[in-house]
Amino acid sequence: MSDIEREVRACAERAQDAAADLAPLSRAVKDEALLAMADALTAEAESIVRANTEDVERARAGGVSEAMIDRLTLTADRVGAIADAVRAIADLPDPVGEVVRGTVLPNGLELRQIRVPLGVVGIIYEGRPNVTADAAALCLKSGNAALLRGSSSAYSSNTRIVEVLRGALAKAGLPLDAVQLVPGSGRDSAQALMRARGLVDVLIPRGGGSLIQTVVRESTVPVIETGEGNCHVYVDSAADLDMALAITVNSKTQRLSTCNTAETLLVHADVAEAFLPRAIAALRELGVTLHGDDRARAFDDAVVPATEEDWSTEYLSADLAVKVVDSLDDAVAHIRRYSTSHTEAIVTDSQSAARRFVSRVDSAAVMVNASTRFTDGGEFGFGAEIGISNQKLHARGPMGLPEMTSTKYVVTGEGHLR
Amino acid sequence: MSDIEREVRACAERAQDAAADLAPLSRAVKDEALLAMADALTAEAESIVRANTEDVERARAGGVSEAMIDRLTLTADRVGAIADAVRAIADLPDPVGEVVRGTVLPNGLELRQIRVPLGVVGIIYEGRPNVTADAAALCLKSGNAALLRGSSSAYSSNTRIVEVLRGALAKAGLPLDAVQLVPGSGRDSAQALMRARGLVDVLIPRGGGSLIQTVVRESTVPVIETGEGNCHVYVDSAADLDMALAITVNSKTQRLSTCNTAETLLVHADVAEAFLPRAIAALRELGVTLHGDDRARAFDDAVVPATEEDWSTEYLSADLAVKVVDSLDDAVAHIRRYSTSHTEAIVTDSQSAARRFVSRVDSAAVMVNASTRFTDGGEFGFGAEIGISNQKLHARGPMGLPEMTSTKYVVTGEGHLR
Repeated sequence: MSDIEREVRACAERAQDAAADLAPLSRAVKDEALLAMADALTAEAESIVRANTEDVERARAGGVSEAMIDRLTLTADRVGAIADAVRAIADLPDPVGEVVRGTVLPNGLELRQIRVPLGVVGIIYEGRPNVTADAAALCLKSGNAALLRGSSSAYSSNTRIVEVLRGALAKAGLPLDAVQLVPGSGRDSAQALMRARGLVDVLIPRGGGSLIQTVVRESTVPVIETGEGNCHVYVDSAADLDMALAITVNSKTQRLSTCNTAETLLVHADVAEAFLPRAIAALRELGVTLHGDDRARAFDDAVVPATEEDWSTEYLSADLAVKVVDSLDDAVAHIRRYSTSHTEAIVTDSQSAARRFVSRVDSAAVMVNASTRFTDGGEFGFGAEIGISNQKLHARGPMGLPEMTSTKYVVTGEGHLR
Repeated sequence: MSDIEREVRACAERAQDAAADLAPLSRAVKDEALLAMADALTAEAESIVRANTEDVERARAGGVSEAMIDRLTLTADRVGAIADAVRAIADLPDPVGEVVRGTVLPNGLELRQIRVPLGVVGIIYEGRPNVTADAAALCLKSGNAALLRGSSSAYSSNTRIVEVLRGALAKAGLPLDAVQLVPGSGRDSAQALMRARGLVDVLIPRGGGSLIQTVVRESTVPVIETGEGNCHVYVDSAADLDMALAITVNSKTQRLSTCNTAETLLVHADVAEAFLPRAIAALRELGVTLHGDDRARAFDDAVVPATEEDWSTEYLSADLAVKVVDSLDDAVAHIRRYSTSHTEAIVTDSQSAARRFVSRVDSAAVMVNASTRFTDGGEFGFGAEIGISNQKLHARGPMGLPEMTSTKYVVTGEGHLR
């Protein structure tokens, strides 16, 4: 076992002890700590920005692009926004203790299934340093100890933010080890987390596809897979074509690089002639390159030929694949074959078409006459989001605080025997 | 890729197609198929018993113990009981389509989270041939395609049972590949299942600890871990000692070899003198060997010394570890250290003690004044049980039909854009 692995495991053991202390805490105690964390972030904005400057200078010296440097950079205002996000998490209801199901059994035993924290949650992330405070706050609110492993590019910022958060925890009388930054920032520290089965209850990777796939493949700790979205909009023969145009444009262009952005447009043959020339013109005007099958290309020469690869590509760019299908069932078959099962939308005024699409498309979210862009914890009213699960076990779709809990059964009797 | 792996993957692909057909089926259609399966089992009892005879003869020739042979043996009556269990599953409510949460968002979007099948469920089991029909029926009822990989010792029986079930599926007009026995019965077929990530949605191992640990360690397909129970009974200082004695005896001896059987007794020092001599005598009379710490042994010479290993052993036999603790918190600390987090019980008349124990013990089930033996899908009123989950993600404790589902969000608008 390497030194780093030993250190990471020692962190995880301390996190287990902290988690045991966090589990029975009332909402009031946790909220007080969260507000103290937010206040400390505001008070320490200057030292956080100073630490961030080290990361930024290192990135600049390493020739990192200006766009990436902007994502990395913290200012006093941005630290203020991070603090506000922590305050918003304090405002959310506490999922712990919620009775999920409850009954009195025929023999008089009282059975309750209640939400409890997962325990120790590991988060491996690439993103901006704001994820550090956000993930720590979500974990604390749901009674979990957080083991944070951020990217090496933000190591100084993350280190300072975690110091500030732990200072606030200490003042609030909570265990310091409820929030820990995993030592090291190389591959070995992430791998040590992935091997800490029995010490870490769940790992949540947040970042690009290759990070997520590495964690899914290598982790022996259970993983919640977040992510990739090859989302489809299907324009049915019974669609209101103005609505279909607005939903297509919004799903593709409202933001290009999010997982709920549409990547393929499927159009029923019966409305292709009435719909596609308008859609192609509108999308082209917005700078979108269309990649079409032969039937779509027949409407406009500027549609470039789609290859097999286009159907399974999550562009995250101003590109959209487009295909004409002969029936709703053909659209469903295409989606089943190529979709990553994140979000698919149907535009139709037919009740039977909507019902058939909803029951046959197996995705985390199915939209009827609404933009794919609505698959989001904030839009769903969850108040906070730890990620969007792309898997079927435990949590599927946007994950809020309840998805960061497990349950236990509490069974109360008066000497009941079997 | 070996021939077996190719064949197993081909099975899984056919199962995916079958699962797509099963997902939108109504309860009535699934129940009709289940009743046809039950009728077919009854009608074909003779041929099933004949196939079973081959397994039994092979086992006998291999020198298998009579107890194991009894577990393997099918009679017409036992086949009848298997058919009745399938009928009982038809009687249960269908979890698919249940609205788990639903609301109208401020912008008018209707949001519903509904239960959907997981898809393709692989079950690797060692047990008696009755698991074959039971698992197939639970999968079908919850809209999942079943990939069954039973033990080689029951291969002839399992093959015949699956033939009969598939015959009934065909008659009911359902896809044959909703129920498949995975080809081969060696390690390679199980390993091929464990590597079928993307084709199989979840693997559920049912059997002994070593089978389960192998699957957890080697599978890249998500696993629901079932199982091991090192369960504790804690007799508090405020316990009714008659109740404590009855619960201890019932938890230990009502059945010795189940996962919810108690394996360690913890007794508060204040009641040790009043309780332990009675408990030791009662348990010894029932043939239970006690393994105690020094303070427990002081009450009776016949208590053998407990080693460190005893505290973490799931005996599954007429043995019970026993320890005197100075406080409820010491009992909780012992449980946190040694328990497998399956089931723990407290016996107490103190409301504050019960509340503290329940909030601090992190196990799938916590009993207050009731036997540990109640942690069971049947006892909890679930009607059927696919296993008892020992993990925190997705399902914890007894798993009924709802635990064999995922969810999806259905979002309905009238042209909603972001």
